Amino acid sequence: MTKKEVLVLEDILGTNRKIASDIRNKFREKGILAVNLLSSPGSGKTTLLEALAVRLASRFKIGVIEGDIETERDAERIRARGIPAWQITTGGACHLEARMVGRVLAKVPADLDFLFIENVGNLVCPANYDLGEELRFVLLSSPEGDDKPKKYPEAFLSSQVLVLTKADLLPYLPFDAGKARREALDINPKLKSFTVSALTGEGMDELEVFLASSLEALRTSHA
Amino acid sequence: MTKKEVLVLEDILGTNRKIASDIRNKFREKGILAVNLLSSPGSGKTTLLEALAVRLASRFKIGVIEGDIETERDAERIRARGIPAWQITTGGACHLEARMVGRVLAKVPADLDFLFIENVGNLVCPANYDLGEELRFVLLSSPEGDDKPKKYPEAFLSSQVLVLTKADLLPYLPFDAGKARREALDINPKLKSFTVSALTGEGMDELEVFLASSLEALRTSHA
Repeated sequence: MTKKEVLVLEDILGTNRKIASDIRNKFREKGILAVNLLSSPGSGKTTLLEALAVRLASRFKIGVIEGDIETERDAERIRARGIPAWQITTGGACHLEARMVGRVLAKVPADLDFLFIENVGNLVCPANYDLGEELRFVLLSSPEGDDKPKKYPEAFLSSQVLVLTKADLLPYLPFDAGKARREALDINPKLKSFTVSALTGEGMDELEVFLASSLEALRTSHA
Repeated sequence: MTKKEVLVLEDILGTNRKIASDIRNKFREKGILAVNLLSSPGSGKTTLLEALAVRLASRFKIGVIEGDIETERDAERIRARGIPAWQITTGGACHLEARMVGRVLAKVPADLDFLFIENVGNLVCPANYDLGEELRFVLLSSPEGDDKPKKYPEAFLSSQVLVLTKADLLPYLPFDAGKARREALDINPKLKSFTVSALTGEGMDELEVFLASSLEALRTSHA
């Protein structure tokens, strides 16, 4: 990168951090747990959200912000589950930014418990942009291969939670979940990890319990 | 984006186009067919290259440029097949640029037949950067889902060839290859498409024949 490019990038990231920090404070004041979901395209972010929506909806009020380059397809899938979803189409941009989230916040009910933000499918760029979330989930699906954490370290370094998805496909794949987890923990020893199949329900109880206790912890520490 | 950001981006893309055009002319003069492979992480780019290497190596001289954010893992996999591979690690950047390819060209033998360039695993950013290739392949693996072309249109619009990979997993997945192909062709009617499994060999003969005839066509038109 040229010097000019570095300066422009620093400007963008600095501004983004400030906006994200304001958004996080608002979420904390309202007691909303915001979760930013990062992964490659097709790792199962929307399918995980559909499954979580069904599980959480009886006890909690939830909403979803959908980030995509084009189409409202993911928001439509979430709405079909009776969950409100707000679509952001970036029109080419490879990641969500805090100001994009800021623009839809007026539509988000103040009495929400969970706000899930599904980022653009991209294991690289979204890792650099704080959206004001409390928790960042990085998803890695079994068909992608267990060698991915060290090839795409920033997403694993900047997340609090690793979700290994599509566990139902493990019998057909050379994916070593233990190796993937160890590699991710080498990058970020604080990562909490879950292995799930949104289709069979495997591991989803644990993820649900974790989310409920995270919400409680957020409300206790920012009461 | 701010006006300043747009100008910087236009600068970057304009410079990249010029360098790419010079590189393409060099490849054409030498009769090397350069292929740029684009896809999400874990769609099977390296596995496809390993399988092609074995098939092509008896008749052709081939080489591979490996683009990754971190690690030399993919280059090592290719070298293990007896094929020369040159690694570019971008150290964070989400795509290869023409100048990165330009820097390794001195190492590439002038008598190659095929030069494959495996881009960073990312279905978004690499689409904007011409690397001087003759052909761009976009890979979409069956586990990623058949709804991806319209969600990530630029990669499909800017490619000449669509390779649907991991066909061996189709029995276990709700992936409709016909739908994926139709959607990609809606975006780019000129796309030539192949459905392959690098593991079982399904569809690989057709891809091999296509590559051999593309090389012949390149040498005929730039003789």
